[in-house]
Amino acid sequence: MAASNTPEPSRRSERSRVAILTATHELITEVGYAKLSIEAIAARAGVGKQTIYRWWPSKGAVVFDSLLSLSEGADGDLALPDTGDLAADLRIVLRATVAEFADPVFEAPVRALNIEIINDPELAATYRERMERPIREAKLARLRSGQDAGQLAADADLELVLDLLYAPITQRWLLRSGPLDEAFADGLVDAVLRAFAPGRVLR
Amino acid sequence: MAASNTPEPSRRSERSRVAILTATHELITEVGYAKLSIEAIAARAGVGKQTIYRWWPSKGAVVFDSLLSLSEGADGDLALPDTGDLAADLRIVLRATVAEFADPVFEAPVRALNIEIINDPELAATYRERMERPIREAKLARLRSGQDAGQLAADADLELVLDLLYAPITQRWLLRSGPLDEAFADGLVDAVLRAFAPGRVLR
Repeated sequence: MAASNTPEPSRRSERSRVAILTATHELITEVGYAKLSIEAIAARAGVGKQTIYRWWPSKGAVVFDSLLSLSEGADGDLALPDTGDLAADLRIVLRATVAEFADPVFEAPVRALNIEIINDPELAATYRERMERPIREAKLARLRSGQDAGQLAADADLELVLDLLYAPITQRWLLRSGPLDEAFADGLVDAVLRAFAPGRVLR
Repeated sequence: MAASNTPEPSRRSERSRVAILTATHELITEVGYAKLSIEAIAARAGVGKQTIYRWWPSKGAVVFDSLLSLSEGADGDLALPDTGDLAADLRIVLRATVAEFADPVFEAPVRALNIEIINDPELAATYRERMERPIREAKLARLRSGQDAGQLAADADLELVLDLLYAPITQRWLLRSGPLDEAFADGLVDAVLRAFAPGRVLR
Protein backbone atom coordinates (compact mmCIF):
# COMPACT_ATOMS: atom_id res chain seq x y z
CA MET A 1 0.00 0.00 0.00
CA ALA A 2 1.06 3.57 -0.63
CA ALA A 3 1.42 4.40 3.05
CA SER A 4 4.24 1.90 3.58
CA ASN A 5 6.28 3.59 0.85
CA THR A 6 6.07 7.10 2.37
CA PRO A 7 7.95 8.36 5.43
CA GLU A 8 4.63 8.88 7.25
CA PRO A 9 4.78 12.67 6.98
CA SER A 10 1.80 13.34 9.21
CA ARG A 11 3.18 11.31 12.11
CA ARG A 12 6.60 12.95 11.72
CA SER A 13 4.92 16.35 11.59
CA GLU A 14 3.01 15.61 14.76
CA ARG A 15 6.23 14.53 16.49
CA SER A 16 7.95 17.78 15.45
CA ARG A 17 4.95 19.82 16.53
CA VAL A 18 4.92 18.27 19.99
CA ALA A 19 8.72 18.69 20.30
CA ILE A 20 8.44 22.37 19.36
CA LEU A 21 5.61 23.07 21.79
CA THR A 22 7.41 21.22 24.60
CA ALA A 23 10.67 23.07 23.91
CA THR A 24 8.79 26.38 23.91
CA HIS A 25 7.25 25.68 27.27
CA GLU A 26 10.55 24.55 28.80
CA LEU A 27 12.49 27.52 27.46
CA ILE A 28 9.98 30.13 28.48
CA THR A 29 10.18 28.81 32.02
CA GLU A 30 13.98 28.80 31.93
CA VAL A 31 14.80 32.11 30.21
CA GLY A 32 11.52 34.08 30.20
CA TYR A 33 9.59 35.41 27.28
CA ALA A 34 11.80 38.38 26.37
CA LYS A 35 14.90 36.18 25.85
CA LEU A 36 13.06 33.33 24.15
CA SER A 37 14.09 32.97 20.49
CA ILE A 38 12.88 30.86 17.58
CA GLU A 39 16.51 29.71 17.16
CA ALA A 40 16.61 28.35 20.70
CA ILE A 41 13.25 26.60 20.31
CA ALA A 42 14.42 25.00 17.05
CA ALA A 43 17.69 23.82 18.62
CA ARG A 44 15.95 22.35 21.68
CA ALA A 45 13.25 20.66 19.58
CA GLY A 46 15.80 19.30 17.07
CA VAL A 47 14.10 20.90 14.06
CA GLY A 48 15.06 23.63 11.61
CA LYS A 49 13.88 27.22 12.13
CA GLN A 50 11.99 26.96 8.85
CA THR A 51 9.86 24.16 10.28
CA ILE A 52 8.69 26.52 13.01
CA TYR A 53 8.05 29.42 10.64
CA ARG A 54 6.06 27.08 8.35
CA TRP A 55 3.50 26.58 11.12
CA TRP A 56 3.65 29.73 13.22
CA PRO A 57 4.02 33.36 12.10
CA SER A 58 5.69 34.62 15.29
CA LYS A 59 7.16 33.77 18.67
CA GLY A 60 3.90 34.85 20.29
CA ALA A 61 1.93 32.38 18.20
CA VAL A 62 4.14 29.43 19.24
CA VAL A 63 3.92 30.46 22.88
CA PHE A 64 0.16 30.67 22.63
CA ASP A 65 -0.14 27.20 21.09
CA SER A 66 2.27 25.74 23.61
CA LEU A 67 0.08 26.97 26.45
CA LEU A 68 -3.08 25.89 24.66
CA SER A 69 -1.72 22.36 24.26
CA LEU A 70 -0.96 22.26 27.99
CA SER A 71 -4.42 23.39 28.99
CA GLU A 72 -6.05 21.00 26.50
CA GLY A 73 -3.87 18.20 27.88
CA ALA A 74 -5.43 18.86 31.28
CA ASP A 75 -8.69 17.90 29.58
CA GLY A 76 -12.05 18.09 31.21
CA ASP A 77 -10.86 18.50 34.79
CA LEU A 78 -11.94 22.11 35.05
CA ALA A 79 -14.78 21.69 37.55
CA LEU A 80 -14.39 23.58 40.82
CA PRO A 81 -14.81 21.72 44.13
CA ASP A 82 -18.43 21.61 45.25
CA THR A 83 -18.80 20.59 48.90
CA GLY A 84 -22.06 22.51 49.23
CA ASP A 85 -20.28 25.37 51.04
CA LEU A 86 -19.62 28.10 48.47
CA ALA A 87 -17.49 30.28 50.76
CA ALA A 88 -15.22 27.39 51.75
CA ASP A 89 -14.87 26.19 48.16
CA LEU A 90 -14.06 29.65 46.83
CA ARG A 91 -11.50 30.17 49.54
CA ILE A 92 -9.74 26.94 48.50
CA VAL A 93 -9.85 27.86 44.81
CA LEU A 94 -8.64 31.44 45.27
CA ARG A 95 -5.84 30.35 47.61
CA ALA A 96 -4.76 27.82 44.98
CA THR A 97 -4.81 30.56 42.33
CA VAL A 98 -2.61 32.77 44.49
CA ALA A 99 -0.20 29.84 45.02
CA GLU A 100 -0.02 29.18 41.26
CA PHE A 101 0.94 32.79 40.58
CA ALA A 102 3.74 32.49 43.14
CA ASP A 103 5.21 29.54 41.22
CA PRO A 104 7.68 30.68 38.51
CA VAL A 105 7.18 27.49 36.48
CA PHE A 106 3.50 28.28 36.18
CA GLU A 107 3.56 32.05 36.09
CA ALA A 108 6.34 32.80 33.58
CA PRO A 109 4.61 31.37 30.50
CA VAL A 110 1.22 32.72 31.57
CA ARG A 111 2.71 36.18 32.03
CA ALA A 112 4.21 35.92 28.53
CA LEU A 113 0.84 34.90 27.13
CA ASN A 114 -0.85 37.83 28.84
CA ILE A 115 1.62 40.26 27.30
CA GLU A 116 0.77 38.86 23.86
CA ILE A 117 -2.94 39.20 24.61
CA ILE A 118 -2.54 42.79 25.80
CA ASN A 119 -0.62 43.61 22.59
CA ASP A 120 -2.87 41.83 20.14
CA PRO A 121 -6.69 42.18 20.05
CA GLU A 122 -7.03 39.25 17.65
CA LEU A 123 -5.06 36.93 19.89
CA ALA A 124 -7.14 38.20 22.82
CA ALA A 125 -10.32 37.08 21.06
CA THR A 126 -8.85 33.65 20.20
CA TYR A 127 -7.62 33.23 23.75
CA ARG A 128 -10.98 34.19 25.17
CA GLU A 129 -12.77 31.69 22.97
CA ARG A 130 -10.39 28.71 23.20
CA MET A 131 -8.74 28.96 26.61
CA GLU A 132 -10.58 31.34 28.89
CA ARG A 133 -14.18 30.45 28.11
CA PRO A 134 -14.12 26.80 29.26
CA ILE A 135 -12.45 27.79 32.52
CA ARG A 136 -14.87 30.66 33.03
CA GLU A 137 -17.84 28.38 32.36
CA ALA A 138 -16.60 25.98 35.04
CA LYS A 139 -16.34 28.83 37.53
CA LEU A 140 -19.79 30.13 36.60
CA ALA A 141 -21.22 26.64 37.09
CA ARG A 142 -19.95 26.58 40.68
CA LEU A 143 -21.41 30.04 41.36
CA ARG A 144 -24.72 28.94 39.86
CA SER A 145 -24.88 25.91 42.11
CA GLY A 146 -24.20 28.20 45.09
CA GLN A 147 -26.95 30.50 43.88
CA ASP A 148 -29.35 27.54 43.59
CA ALA A 149 -28.43 26.59 47.15
CA GLY A 150 -29.39 30.08 48.34
CA GLN A 151 -25.81 31.18 49.09
CA LEU A 152 -25.84 33.99 46.54
CA ALA A 153 -28.66 36.45 45.78
CA ALA A 154 -30.99 35.05 43.13
CA ASP A 155 -30.46 38.13 40.93
CA ALA A 156 -26.67 38.35 41.40
CA ASP A 157 -24.81 39.09 38.15
CA LEU A 158 -22.47 36.10 38.14
CA GLU A 159 -20.15 37.59 35.49
CA LEU A 160 -19.62 40.57 37.79
CA VAL A 161 -19.11 38.24 40.78
CA LEU A 162 -16.42 36.39 38.83
CA ASP A 163 -14.60 39.58 37.83
CA LEU A 164 -14.69 40.87 41.40
CA LEU A 165 -13.21 37.59 42.67
CA TYR A 166 -10.44 37.20 40.12
CA ALA A 167 -9.50 40.61 38.67
CA PRO A 168 -7.85 41.86 41.88
CA ILE A 169 -5.65 38.74 41.90
CA THR A 170 -4.78 39.13 38.22
CA GLN A 171 -3.91 42.79 38.75
CA ARG A 172 -1.66 42.24 41.78
CA TRP A 173 0.09 39.41 39.98
CA LEU A 174 0.57 41.05 36.57
CA LEU A 175 1.35 44.57 37.75
CA ARG A 176 2.99 43.56 41.05
CA SER A 177 0.86 46.25 42.68
CA GLY A 178 0.53 44.71 46.13
CA PRO A 179 1.01 41.59 48.25
CA LEU A 180 -0.65 38.49 46.83
CA ASP A 181 -1.25 36.05 49.67
CA GLU A 182 -3.90 33.90 51.32
CA ALA A 183 -5.18 36.78 53.46
CA PHE A 184 -5.87 38.76 50.29
CA ALA A 185 -7.65 35.76 48.71
CA ASP A 186 -9.80 35.25 51.81
CA GLY A 187 -10.62 38.97 52.00
CA LEU A 188 -11.81 38.89 48.40
CA VAL A 189 -14.08 35.90 48.97
CA ASP A 190 -15.61 37.44 52.08
CA ALA A 191 -16.18 40.86 50.48
CA VAL A 192 -17.72 39.47 47.30
CA LEU A 193 -20.03 37.08 49.17
CA ARG A 194 -21.18 39.97 51.39
CA ALA A 195 -21.89 42.07 48.30
CA PHE A 196 -24.07 39.36 46.78
CA ALA A 197 -25.51 37.81 49.92
CA PRO A 198 -29.06 36.49 49.50
CA GLY A 199 -31.91 38.50 50.96
CA ARG A 200 -30.41 41.89 50.12
CA VAL A 201 -31.95 44.22 47.62
CA LEU A 202 -29.45 44.59 44.79
CA ARG A 203 -29.64 47.98 43.15
CA MET B 1 30.61 85.91 32.94
CA ALA B 2 31.26 82.35 31.94
CA ALA B 3 27.63 81.59 31.15
CA SER B 4 27.43 84.12 28.33
CA ASN B 5 30.35 82.45 26.55
CA THR B 6 28.80 78.96 26.59
CA PRO B 7 25.89 77.71 24.47
CA GLU B 8 23.82 77.25 27.63
CA PRO B 9 24.11 73.48 27.55
CA SER B 10 21.60 72.86 30.33
CA ARG B 11 18.88 74.88 28.66
CA ARG B 12 19.56 73.16 25.32
CA SER B 13 19.52 69.81 27.06
CA GLU B 14 16.21 70.56 28.66
CA ARG B 15 14.78 71.61 25.29
CA SER B 16 15.94 68.34 23.73
CA ARG B 17 14.58 66.35 26.63
CA VAL B 18 11.14 67.91 26.32
CA ALA B 19 11.19 67.44 22.52
CA ILE B 20 12.07 63.76 22.93
CA LEU B 21 9.37 63.12 25.52
CA THR B 22 6.77 64.94 23.46
CA ALA B 23 7.74 63.06 20.29
CA THR B 24 7.54 59.77 22.20
CA HIS B 25 4.06 60.52 23.41
CA GLU B 26 2.85 61.60 19.96
CA LEU B 27 4.34 58.59 18.20
CA ILE B 28 3.06 56.03 20.65
CA THR B 29 -0.42 57.37 20.08
CA GLU B 30 0.02 57.32 16.30
CA VAL B 31 1.80 54.00 15.71
CA GLY B 32 1.49 52.07 18.98
CA TYR B 33 4.21 50.77 21.20
CA ALA B 34 5.32 47.77 19.14
CA LYS B 35 6.12 49.90 16.08
CA LEU B 36 7.66 52.77 18.00
CA SER B 37 11.41 53.11 17.33
CA ILE B 38 14.20 55.20 18.76
CA GLU B 39 14.95 56.30 15.17
CA ALA B 40 11.45 57.69 14.73
CA ILE B 41 11.55 59.47 18.09
CA ALA B 42 14.92 61.04 17.20
CA ALA B 43 13.64 62.19 13.79
CA ARG B 44 10.46 63.70 15.22
CA ALA B 45 12.32 65.41 18.08
CA GLY B 46 15.06 66.73 15.77
CA VAL B 47 17.88 65.13 17.74
CA GLY B 48 20.39 62.37 17.05
CA LYS B 49 19.73 58.80 18.21
CA GLN B 50 22.83 59.06 20.40
CA THR B 51 21.23 61.90 22.35
CA ILE B 52 18.39 59.58 23.29
CA TYR B 53 20.68 56.69 24.18
CA ARG B 54 22.79 59.00 26.33
CA TRP B 55 19.81 59.58 28.64
CA TRP B 56 17.69 56.43 28.32
CA PRO B 57 18.83 52.81 28.11
CA SER B 58 15.78 51.55 26.17
CA LYS B 59 12.56 52.38 24.39
CA GLY B 60 10.63 51.35 27.51
CA ALA B 61 12.55 53.84 29.62
CA VAL B 62 11.74 56.76 27.28
CA VAL B 63 8.08 55.77 27.18
CA PHE B 64 7.99 55.60 30.95
CA ASP B 65 9.52 59.04 31.36
CA SER B 66 7.25 60.51 28.71
CA LEU B 67 4.19 59.31 30.64
CA LEU B 68 5.69 60.41 33.93
CA SER B 69 6.26 63.93 32.59
CA LEU B 70 2.62 64.05 31.47
CA SER B 71 1.28 62.98 34.85
CA GLU B 72 3.65 65.36 36.67
CA GLY B 73 2.49 68.15 34.34
CA ALA B 74 -1.05 67.50 35.59
CA ASP B 75 0.37 68.52 38.95
CA GLY B 76 -1.56 68.37 42.15
CA ASP B 77 -5.02 68.00 40.68
CA LEU B 78 -5.41 64.39 41.76
CA ALA B 79 -8.18 64.84 44.34
CA LEU B 80 -11.42 63.00 43.66
CA PRO B 81 -14.75 64.87 43.77
CA ASP B 82 -16.20 65.04 47.25
CA THR B 83 -19.85 66.09 47.26
CA GLY B 84 -20.51 64.21 50.49
CA ASP B 85 -22.18 61.34 48.57
CA LEU B 86 -19.58 58.59 48.19
CA ALA B 87 -21.68 56.41 45.88
CA ALA B 88 -22.43 59.29 43.49
CA ASP B 89 -18.81 60.46 43.48
CA LEU B 90 -17.44 56.98 42.83
CA ARG B 91 -19.92 56.45 40.02
CA ILE B 92 -18.67 59.64 38.34
CA VAL B 93 -15.03 58.70 38.80
CA LEU B 94 -15.41 55.10 37.59
CA ARG B 95 -17.47 56.18 34.58
CA ALA B 96 -14.71 58.68 33.71
CA THR B 97 -12.11 55.92 34.04
CA VAL B 98 -14.08 53.71 31.67
CA ALA B 99 -14.36 56.61 29.20
CA GLU B 100 -10.59 57.23 29.36
CA PHE B 101 -9.86 53.60 28.50
CA ALA B 102 -12.16 53.89 25.47
CA ASP B 103 -10.06 56.80 24.16
CA PRO B 104 -7.15 55.62 21.97
CA VAL B 105 -5.13 58.80 22.62
CA PHE B 106 -5.20 58.04 26.33
CA GLU B 107 -5.13 54.29 26.32
CA ALA B 108 -2.37 53.49 23.79
CA PRO B 109 0.53 54.89 25.80
CA VAL B 110 -0.86 53.60 29.09
CA ARG B 111 -1.21 50.14 27.58
CA ALA B 112 2.42 50.35 26.43
CA LEU B 113 3.50 51.39 29.90
CA ASN B 114 1.60 48.49 31.44
CA ILE B 115 3.36 46.03 29.15
CA GLU B 116 6.70 47.41 30.31
CA ILE B 117 5.60 47.10 33.93
CA ILE B 118 4.43 43.51 33.45
CA ASN B 119 7.79 42.65 31.86
CA ASP B 120 10.03 44.43 34.31
CA PRO B 121 9.75 44.11 38.13
CA GLU B 122 12.15 47.02 38.67
CA LEU B 123 10.12 49.35 36.48
CA ALA B 124 6.99 48.13 38.28
CA ALA B 125 8.48 49.27 41.60
CA THR B 126 9.49 52.66 40.18
CA TYR B 127 6.07 53.12 38.62
CA ARG B 128 4.35 52.21 41.84
CA GLU B 129 6.40 54.70 43.80
CA ARG B 130 6.42 57.65 41.38
CA MET B 131 3.18 57.42 39.41
CA GLU B 132 0.71 55.08 41.07
CA ARG B 133 1.16 56.01 44.72
CA PRO B 134 0.07 59.68 44.52
CA ILE B 135 -3.05 58.68 42.55
CA ARG B 136 -3.80 55.84 44.94
CA GLU B 137 -3.39 58.15 47.94
CA ALA B 138 -5.91 60.56 46.43
CA LYS B 139 -8.41 57.73 45.97
CA LEU B 140 -7.82 56.45 49.50
CA ALA B 141 -8.39 59.97 50.85
CA ARG B 142 -11.85 60.04 49.24
CA LEU B 143 -12.70 56.61 50.65
CA ARG B 144 -11.49 57.72 54.08
CA SER B 145 -13.72 60.79 53.99
CA GLY B 146 -16.66 58.51 53.07
CA GLN B 147 -15.73 56.23 55.93
CA ASP B 148 -15.63 59.20 58.32
CA ALA B 149 -19.09 60.19 57.07
CA GLY B 150 -20.40 56.71 57.93
CA GLN B 151 -20.82 55.59 54.31
CA LEU B 152 -18.29 52.75 54.61
CA ALA B 153 -17.85 50.32 57.52
CA ALA B 154 -15.41 51.71 60.08
CA ASP B 155 -13.22 48.61 59.78
CA ALA B 156 -13.33 48.36 55.98
CA ASP B 157 -9.93 47.56 54.43
CA LEU B 158 -9.66 50.53 52.07
CA GLU B 159 -6.82 48.99 50.03
CA LEU B 160 -9.08 46.04 49.31
CA VAL B 161 -11.98 48.38 48.50
CA LEU B 162 -9.78 50.18 46.00
CA ASP B 163 -8.64 46.97 44.30
CA LEU B 164 -12.22 45.71 44.06
CA LEU B 165 -13.31 48.98 42.44
CA TYR B 166 -10.50 49.32 39.92
CA ALA B 167 -9.02 45.89 39.16
CA PRO B 168 -12.07 44.65 37.22
CA ILE B 169 -11.84 47.74 34.99
CA THR B 170 -8.10 47.32 34.48
CA GLN B 171 -8.59 43.65 33.59
CA ARG B 172 -11.39 44.21 31.07
CA TRP B 173 -9.40 47.00 29.47
CA LEU B 174 -5.98 45.31 29.32
CA LEU B 175 -7.13 41.79 28.46
CA ARG B 176 -10.22 42.82 26.52
CA SER B 177 -12.09 40.17 28.50
CA GLY B 178 -15.54 41.74 28.49
CA PRO B 179 -17.57 44.88 27.81
CA LEU B 180 -16.28 47.99 29.56
CA ASP B 181 -19.14 50.46 29.87
CA GLU B 182 -21.02 52.65 32.33
CA ALA B 183 -23.29 49.81 33.43
CA PHE B 184 -20.21 47.82 34.42
CA ALA B 185 -18.78 50.82 36.32
CA ASP B 186 -22.07 51.37 38.17
CA GLY B 187 -22.36 47.67 38.99
CA LEU B 188 -18.89 47.73 40.53
CA VAL B 189 -19.63 50.74 42.70
CA ASP B 190 -22.91 49.26 43.94
CA ALA B 191 -21.40 45.83 44.69
CA VAL B 192 -18.36 47.19 46.52
CA LEU B 193 -20.40 49.64 48.61
CA ARG B 194 -22.75 46.79 49.57
CA ALA B 195 -19.76 44.66 50.60
CA PHE B 196 -18.42 47.37 52.88
CA ALA B 197 -21.68 48.96 54.01
CA PRO B 198 -21.58 50.31 57.57
CA GLY B 199 -23.30 48.36 60.30
CA ARG B 200 -22.37 44.95 58.93
CA VAL B 201 -20.04 42.62 60.77
CA LEU B 202 -17.00 42.18 58.52
CA ARG B 203 -15.42 38.78 58.95
